[in-house]
Amino acid sequence: MKKKNLLVGQSGGPTVAINASLSGVLEMGFEMPEVDKVYGARNGIQGVLEEHICDMEPYKNRLAELQVTPSMFLGSCRYKLPEPSEGQEIYEKIFEVFSKYQIGYFFYIGGNDSMDTVLKLSGYAEKIGYDIAIMGVPKTIDNDLMEIDHTPGFGSAAKYIASSILEMAHDTYIYQMKSVLIVEIMGRNAGWLTASSVLARNEYSDAPHLIYLPEKPFRTSQFILDVRRELEHRDQVIVAVSEGIRDTEGMYISAQSSRVDQFGHVMLSGTGKYLESLVTDAIGCKVRSVELNVLQRCASHIASKTDIQEAAQLGREAVKRAVEGQTGCMSRLTRVSDDPYMVEYSMAPIARIANEEKKIPQEWINEAGNDVTEDMISYLKPLIQGEMSVPYENGLPKYLYLSQKE
Amino acid sequence: MKKKNLLVGQSGGPTVAINASLSGVLEMGFEMPEVDKVYGARNGIQGVLEEHICDMEPYKNRLAELQVTPSMFLGSCRYKLPEPSEGQEIYEKIFEVFSKYQIGYFFYIGGNDSMDTVLKLSGYAEKIGYDIAIMGVPKTIDNDLMEIDHTPGFGSAAKYIASSILEMAHDTYIYQMKSVLIVEIMGRNAGWLTASSVLARNEYSDAPHLIYLPEKPFRTSQFILDVRRELEHRDQVIVAVSEGIRDTEGMYISAQSSRVDQFGHVMLSGTGKYLESLVTDAIGCKVRSVELNVLQRCASHIASKTDIQEAAQLGREAVKRAVEGQTGCMSRLTRVSDDPYMVEYSMAPIARIANEEKKIPQEWINEAGNDVTEDMISYLKPLIQGEMSVPYENGLPKYLYLSQKE
Repeated sequence: MKKKNLLVGQSGGPTVAINASLSGVLEMGFEMPEVDKVYGARNGIQGVLEEHICDMEPYKNRLAELQVTPSMFLGSCRYKLPEPSEGQEIYEKIFEVFSKYQIGYFFYIGGNDSMDTVLKLSGYAEKIGYDIAIMGVPKTIDNDLMEIDHTPGFGSAAKYIASSILEMAHDTYIYQMKSVLIVEIMGRNAGWLTASSVLARNEYSDAPHLIYLPEKPFRTSQFILDVRRELEHRDQVIVAVSEGIRDTEGMYISAQSSRVDQFGHVMLSGTGKYLESLVTDAIGCKVRSVELNVLQRCASHIASKTDIQEAAQLGREAVKRAVEGQTGCMSRLTRVSDDPYMVEYSMAPIARIANEEKKIPQEWINEAGNDVTEDMISYLKPLIQGEMSVPYENGLPKYLYLSQKE
Repeated sequence: MKKKNLLVGQSGGPTVAINASLSGVLEMGFEMPEVDKVYGARNGIQGVLEEHICDMEPYKNRLAELQVTPSMFLGSCRYKLPEPSEGQEIYEKIFEVFSKYQIGYFFYIGGNDSMDTVLKLSGYAEKIGYDIAIMGVPKTIDNDLMEIDHTPGFGSAAKYIASSILEMAHDTYIYQMKSVLIVEIMGRNAGWLTASSVLARNEYSDAPHLIYLPEKPFRTSQFILDVRRELEHRDQVIVAVSEGIRDTEGMYISAQSSRVDQFGHVMLSGTGKYLESLVTDAIGCKVRSVELNVLQRCASHIASKTDIQEAAQLGREAVKRAVEGQTGCMSRLTRVSDDPYMVEYSMAPIARIANEEKKIPQEWINEAGNDVTEDMISYLKPLIQGEMSVPYENGLPKYLYLSQKE
């Protein structure tokens, strides 16, 4: 048996679980007899191009810390690989580095755009007859990847969102006055994160009272009617709204502040602030808007244990299958049952995943477009279960950090 | 010995520790032989005026849950008591209710405005010769009360702020590009909360790199120079800024969006957004602003154990002293030493506390006005130590809630 080396990189936007997947890849890399050295690429595929490769051996005994560290331990990039026909020299450089470091296994942990990279690199390897397994490991807080029941990082974000809304409900209920709290939640095109706010409901609090998702056209007049109706029978109304809600013409509600990133994604801010001013003008009661912002994707101190454990397992599975000879796949999980919650792991061909977005089925949204159904709740509930034991030092969570010097 | 009844209320804005103080008051109330029944006033002094009084006996065995529940279990109010000369009938009504429920001990947990209520009520009781102990128990995330080393609720807010900034630093450091993150933190006049962001610094991260407090005039031109200088030697600059920063004329930087509440407090929003647009225009790199907003004061899931334990003890102390015959006081703590951290409990006369604000000493801010000193760090560090064991149910923190029906 000829041993080969393993290389792993991380790409795209941060989540709380992406280092758990990294820890799973590393763990199996250190364990499998087919794998010799275990390397990490700094800043994803850019680290490969720039030959910024580091030996992961020093972290062999720190995988438990790594597992609960937010964001990307190895750094990230938002580098979109050109088509091989348009960027031959880039592909040649990447495979030159693979060859120099004797990489037989390459793992890329990321979302849609990262799976596009896996698709292109595995296709190129096949074309040139280069013997390497190139595998994707999924992550994204947005939960919008195809071919997987849910994505690592989503469950922890959902737990943060639901916990925060419950805590803000306690904060809101204390005054004897009419008020509206609008919570703006991430999600440009898919409303999964905003939908997860529904998990905040318990036996004493039914907040959020209104939920608006990008999957249904948003009508500001209907929104004001909804809020008015809620205010008739309760003092405090809590609204969960996706940053990506659009009007019936498909225009973002917060269109005035939109920008476009290099993948052509429209970047938004200000949906909550805009709705705040709408309610102030139309109803005139106390209104506050809160944008949960980046803490949704990096608050590891309240990570979901289910999420972290699954993320690590998806990393391990990818290594096992790569060593068995598979390539051009993404490790995935399929749900066997909601209650008791059970999943199965397998591999999905990358072609069906890259550049696609999974949206919420219309039948999981109520007819009025201001709430979700019981099916949605059954789907979401298992994903936020369990808490990680995060170590603390000097009163703060103790995370692992890769020095810039490496 | 004639037994008398105890009444407790909560007032002002929420904190994570105000129910810990309530649990301390209740615990001692149930324990002291001098106290017969233990009552709670719904929505502070308004609950007394409206005779909305509830028996706390059913919660006797749930004080541990109460201790980690955010916001006000009994509800709050923002009711400013008139001078006795201008609102005689209001005082008469309050003391009529005290008399009807045979209240011999009244505790009011709150901040500046609540201590004003304690001052007025204890003065009135003395004037009319009514035998009652009226005591204040401090709380405020702002840490701006006089006569106390620090206020309950502040340490937990500080822990949330520092942990969030550390997590956002992980989120920010992953890209190889110049960027600025501006974190807007609560605090209209006192910069204690913003200063506590300094605790996020550790051996691998020196964020926040710039800290701006309301205690020093803010110059936008100097701010842009500061950011530019930081960007020269690092890729990511993280800025902590108080919502209440003002220019050299004393005008709020976010003056365009200010409102005034019924106590004459100026309510702000938008300082971070304003600075974001300044940096975008002047420097042009990627800029993001995050407003930590109400989660600073209600994120009980990451409460400081030091804070919660002290808050409970301040509640207990107030009951002990009231039973001993003191009145018109606020329970306080004095720091004996930083390391090892030790405090002593005593009583402070209310007159020196009500309507005053404690600001950061100028010598704890660096000369450039963009950082804090080592003295500040030594002061802050002990306050965020330790974690509470918060129970979880269905993946969410399990808190205690007083039904609206009671």
